[in-house]
Amino acid sequence: MSGATSGANAVLAALRASPGSALSGELLSDQLGVSRAQVWKHVESLRKRGYGIEGEPGGGYRLQSVPDRLYPEEILPELETHWLGRHYEHLETTDSTNRLAFELGRSGAPHGATVVAEGQSAGRGRLGRSFYSPPYTNLYVSIVLRPSCSIADAPTLILGAAVAVADTVAAFLGDREAVSIKWPNDVLVRGRKTSGILMESSTEGARIAFAVLGIGVNLNVDREQFPDDFRALATSLASELGRPVDRAAFARALFHALERELDAHAAGGFDSIRPRFEGYFQMADSRIAVDELADQRIKGRARGIAANGALEIEVESGARSGEIVQVLAGDVTLAKPPRDGR
Amino acid sequence: MSGATSGANAVLAALRASPGSALSGELLSDQLGVSRAQVWKHVESLRKRGYGIEGEPGGGYRLQSVPDRLYPEEILPELETHWLGRHYEHLETTDSTNRLAFELGRSGAPHGATVVAEGQSAGRGRLGRSFYSPPYTNLYVSIVLRPSCSIADAPTLILGAAVAVADTVAAFLGDREAVSIKWPNDVLVRGRKTSGILMESSTEGARIAFAVLGIGVNLNVDREQFPDDFRALATSLASELGRPVDRAAFARALFHALERELDAHAAGGFDSIRPRFEGYFQMADSRIAVDELADQRIKGRARGIAANGALEIEVESGARSGEIVQVLAGDVTLAKPPRDGR
Repeated sequence: MSGATSGANAVLAALRASPGSALSGELLSDQLGVSRAQVWKHVESLRKRGYGIEGEPGGGYRLQSVPDRLYPEEILPELETHWLGRHYEHLETTDSTNRLAFELGRSGAPHGATVVAEGQSAGRGRLGRSFYSPPYTNLYVSIVLRPSCSIADAPTLILGAAVAVADTVAAFLGDREAVSIKWPNDVLVRGRKTSGILMESSTEGARIAFAVLGIGVNLNVDREQFPDDFRALATSLASELGRPVDRAAFARALFHALERELDAHAAGGFDSIRPRFEGYFQMADSRIAVDELADQRIKGRARGIAANGALEIEVESGARSGEIVQVLAGDVTLAKPPRDGR
Repeated sequence: MSGATSGANAVLAALRASPGSALSGELLSDQLGVSRAQVWKHVESLRKRGYGIEGEPGGGYRLQSVPDRLYPEEILPELETHWLGRHYEHLETTDSTNRLAFELGRSGAPHGATVVAEGQSAGRGRLGRSFYSPPYTNLYVSIVLRPSCSIADAPTLILGAAVAVADTVAAFLGDREAVSIKWPNDVLVRGRKTSGILMESSTEGARIAFAVLGIGVNLNVDREQFPDDFRALATSLASELGRPVDRAAFARALFHALERELDAHAAGGFDSIRPRFEGYFQMADSRIAVDELADQRIKGRARGIAANGALEIEVESGARSGEIVQVLAGDVTLAKPPRDGR
């Protein structure tokens, strides 16, 4: 962090600490040990970043509004994590936060290093699909992980991340019943997708050298803005709530929940996460069809999640009827589409 | 491939097909259906790429030498693979072929798409170490794979790649006994490292969406050029043979062996590779010490490779004496260093 940035952050922290009241330039100058001219320069740089700072002649400075940005100064001061997000990079826009975080991982970034962008020009989702990433409305974050587990545990790390997203979405909605997880890693609100998770990793022997967990959550985007082809299937928190959510507060809460689930996974593997995952896994015993990537369509009843993170399906017809098969990946369709407002 | 390039390749192919004899510009012009001026332009472009083409007035063109480069025109015509290397990108230099291939994977490159660079400015090895990558002497290749296996099988894919490298190295040395594999993925010649393998992957559910297999093999680099800190531990084929190897021929042979091992893995998993792996696994029953990444040092006897690719060690002392433990990754040291010229 440059000296100028940390000086501006000190001014911001002082203004935040006195909500509603004005601080004189002289007081700030004394408190921070810098000249009044420097205080003024820091205030100007904060204003350029979108902070609304009132300055009356003789009346001092007062913080009136903060910008709707995921700046480090909006995230870090109230962040309650131990390691996740402590190394935090913010970008106005990028092609893909996962690509950037993977580069950070390659160059030795620590466990928990985090990249957030306000918008992505080439956000990626599962099955090579793009992830719709309009700017300044949602959360696009990628986190470098250095778990000490086997690469075989990567799928269950993703399930842990899905639990963290589901918990955070449920808390902001104030409606846990509305939230479910569609295997492997979509978080749904009332049956519509609100989040995507993607993991990339570098393997060393049988261990994960590092992984990048990429998470996109539809927060304040208006459903009407969605591309036609998935408007019916996707939603956002704002569309469900009828009002926007505080994106910075959501990011902090998500980082906290993620750290909790990843620490649980490190301590006890998927078994430590399973009860919470199953709480959101409303697919259990549903009739589903799975289109596996290169294979045939499997129809049957979802029975649960195997220890390796695979979906277990009891086949309903054909030669393998009654057999439990494990599906590693694929596109799941519920036989009966979820209803709105159940 | 541009028209100019494919025209030059057609001229090159015609010259190659007539070794030792000169082909007149008129004959080439007739044979390829282009003007004599175009033939001359193609010859000039080939000369610029390092092809030695003799042209006597009235005597026609004769191919006298080919450059020591891994150009597609040196690799593809004699390549015997079905899918590996068929999409082939060649670069004079890059930061890391793995980074480039991962970008290709992200943008949908097919199974087997291959990136080769003559040199790397930031070649990467295991444990975040750099991989010494001087230009025009060795082989640096990264291959995009779209295996249909679980992410849990990634470590055994690497073991299959190690078998392919070991087979190719053994064939070029003409000495199979001199070649061994040090778990997880170093190929040694007379106890000295000659190859490094690194895998990176993108995970989708429990399946590998795509992986990038990065392989570096020390071919013609002089051992004396190695940085001091690993001269004693590393070697090259040329240093072992006392003469340089044909890098393009090595690359083709390696691609062929890799395709064989990866096809075997796709058909029958690690069991299909295990016999060949064990033929090179001279660590079996050796006394070793393993420094696991974040953990303690384990000493004992190497007993074999588990189905998940982990190294099995029978612990020799302490509370766990006699127990078989699985090691996922780490730095292996043989208790007795291998002797030269055994």
